Amino acid sequence: MATRKVDTLHPRLEVTHLKPSKRVGLIVVLTGYGKGKTSSAVGMAVRACGHGMKVCMIQFMKGDIYTGEWDGIDKMDCDVELIRTGMGFCGIKGNPYPHPVHREAAQQALRLAREKLDSGGCDLLVLDEINNALHLNLLDLDQVLDLLHRKPPLTHLVLTGRDAHPDVMELADTVSEVREIKHAYRKDIEAQPGIDY
Amino acid sequence: MATRKVDTLHPRLEVTHLKPSKRVGLIVVLTGYGKGKTSSAVGMAVRACGHGMKVCMIQFMKGDIYTGEWDGIDKMDCDVELIRTGMGFCGIKGNPYPHPVHREAAQQALRLAREKLDSGGCDLLVLDEINNALHLNLLDLDQVLDLLHRKPPLTHLVLTGRDAHPDVMELADTVSEVREIKHAYRKDIEAQPGIDY
Repeated sequence: MATRKVDTLHPRLEVTHLKPSKRVGLIVVLTGYGKGKTSSAVGMAVRACGHGMKVCMIQFMKGDIYTGEWDGIDKMDCDVELIRTGMGFCGIKGNPYPHPVHREAAQQALRLAREKLDSGGCDLLVLDEINNALHLNLLDLDQVLDLLHRKPPLTHLVLTGRDAHPDVMELADTVSEVREIKHAYRKDIEAQPGIDY
Repeated sequence: MATRKVDTLHPRLEVTHLKPSKRVGLIVVLTGYGKGKTSSAVGMAVRACGHGMKVCMIQFMKGDIYTGEWDGIDKMDCDVELIRTGMGFCGIKGNPYPHPVHREAAQQALRLAREKLDSGGCDLLVLDEINNALHLNLLDLDQVLDLLHRKPPLTHLVLTGRDAHPDVMELADTVSEVREIKHAYRKDIEAQPGIDY
């Protein structure tokens, strides 16, 4: 990294460094049908990396369609790990795997998430598309709630995906619903690299 | 980067590489009062970096409070640049600068955004908090619409911030409204590193 990547127009502006009087590991849920849930989780991973935190991201129900964050995260010179665990989106046209195959993949991902939490080795654990996986019965509600309950107090846990379960949202500290106001694909614009994948 | 950061549980799963028949530079607006707009833009920057794209991010109205993405982006081994241009959030308690100082800073940022677009040197340009800057009259509507009109056809442009102007949303391809369902600060939990900044 020879070049300076971050600069300011106002070098004399004083920068405040916040420091909470109490550190808390938050549960954050990103749900809704609009664009911006996974990308927001990836952005939080960058933010956490900037603070020197250790980040783990487990992608449920993804892995069959290339997405730029795989290589983008690979290029991050910090303690971040992304594990693709799924067999692609369950029930989406073109996906060849039956429900039990998706469920077994999600159950493997769940075991991995449990290990990550129990080891205490992540400062931020992102469970990408887990809301969706629960909604599609690839996981059971008590399994997901158990994850939330076993979270170490200082670990941040981010859960993304459509159709978040009300009981999961109830336990969360911060919940955002990303609403679709409009989306390029409705104008028949195909998914574009760098934005959509 | 000695360690492998991205892995899969299913190494034999076939990965499809999408390729749109037509490349389009999208205009994406991320607005609303919930958490996840800037982090989503940072996530798209990672995604674009993964595709080998050149990314520029201009932060309007930020710069006085440290946030982890500055160091996180600095640690990205790819062609990304983040420029903090603002004097902090205009009108927020504790910010000492009067409106004309914020406006001049936003105008500088706008000139920089225009240069970036005209040079064609960015594949993805993020204008972070520009919606907010327009709403607070630090920029004029015709100035922002002019930016959208001068965007090169293949450049992606992402505009974040609350209170996006209807005319900006009208010109956008994809618009997400991030709604706050709940937020930790309402339970008097202070902003936490890695999640909130």
